[in-house]
Amino acid sequence: MRSKIQNGEFQEGHLIPKEVELAALFQVSRPTVRQAVQELVNQGYLEKRKRRGTIVTSRKISQEFTHVIESYNKEMNSKGLTTATQVLSFRSEQASAEVQAALGLDHGAKVYRLERLRFANEQPVVWVTSFVPFRPLPKLGQVDFTQQSLYTELAKAQHKIVRVRRKLEVMAADESTSVMLHIAVNAPIFYFHTWGATVSGEIFEYSVAKYRGDINSFQFEINQRS
Amino acid sequence: MRSKIQNGEFQEGHLIPKEVELAALFQVSRPTVRQAVQELVNQGYLEKRKRRGTIVTSRKISQEFTHVIESYNKEMNSKGLTTATQVLSFRSEQASAEVQAALGLDHGAKVYRLERLRFANEQPVVWVTSFVPFRPLPKLGQVDFTQQSLYTELAKAQHKIVRVRRKLEVMAADESTSVMLHIAVNAPIFYFHTWGATVSGEIFEYSVAKYRGDINSFQFEINQRS
Repeated sequence: MRSKIQNGEFQEGHLIPKEVELAALFQVSRPTVRQAVQELVNQGYLEKRKRRGTIVTSRKISQEFTHVIESYNKEMNSKGLTTATQVLSFRSEQASAEVQAALGLDHGAKVYRLERLRFANEQPVVWVTSFVPFRPLPKLGQVDFTQQSLYTELAKAQHKIVRVRRKLEVMAADESTSVMLHIAVNAPIFYFHTWGATVSGEIFEYSVAKYRGDINSFQFEINQRS
Repeated sequence: MRSKIQNGEFQEGHLIPKEVELAALFQVSRPTVRQAVQELVNQGYLEKRKRRGTIVTSRKISQEFTHVIESYNKEMNSKGLTTATQVLSFRSEQASAEVQAALGLDHGAKVYRLERLRFANEQPVVWVTSFVPFRPLPKLGQVDFTQQSLYTELAKAQHKIVRVRRKLEVMAADESTSVMLHIAVNAPIFYFHTWGATVSGEIFEYSVAKYRGDINSFQFEINQRS
């Protein structure tokens, strides 16, 4: 039954077949079906709904970063997920042409390059590389980003990010993404670019993030402009 | 050179190699390179930037539907793209359990099911299936949706959509999606669900849309809540 959920035969949000049908399908007794269903409910794969029956739970992490500027940890923790961050690399380097353009820097300018892998409930969720201008922020080099959030550190340094522009794309995971996020090569992923600006309009963050497609969804509301 | 752009060897937003390098790479003369570059500029694949050189143009349609409620045609037309809509099917039917739940309908209720393929500059962009409650809207059946927008028709019927909830996911294109959108099987696509509500809070639209991943991107800005 679990494999039918995982491969999508039993679809998220949909009712599973009735007990008697499941017993016939798997050629087991109804008490065995009942026990298996209860186990999958306990494991979070299924959910019992009053008067409707048992539905397949959505296993995706529903995120709201599309309309709120919030740190990864804060958002995940608010959903009851435990988070962890692995710093893959953190160094200063000369900005590439792409980063230079994104941060509006002069040719040859230095940037911090922070590459992190972020987890929720011990699963890798997103691989994100952030670029921050080096010049006004020499102390950033001493921060432990396994524990501290980039947005908090920027705020502490009087460069609080208050406006964010995001570009959403999709792509197929390449070899390195597949290894990093524990997904198949060519699995569909979210590919996001973020430009974060301070109140004065200066861009202090440029990030490129690859979110696993199988465990993430993004939800938001739009109200008509009046 | 065009194939190197299309397969991503020459990346979007990045400089292409210098004339002399291109001449060596393709084993042609520099005037031939210059002519080829100019042709690709004319065709919109490349863009000349003052003092920087020639960069690969983004060929994705940058959409803003993530923060504005606007009809597909209006949004595309505002970007100078010509649009067309093919109505694949339009009928009334009994709501499935999924649609019933999404629209908050009673068991056995009827809905309109409108399936459209939408084009920009003659390329298929999105395959969208929309569900609308049948009961208060018997006249919807007479509308020509190759010409009229669903949102306009709902507004005419005093059920204007003023609040929209969206859920963004990614998936790999299956066989039918690949045929419909002219992309490879397993190519990454955007998979969006939309719930549209009227001012009274009633859900009058539930849509499931598959956007081509290779030619669409979604951009939006977030401002810090005060």
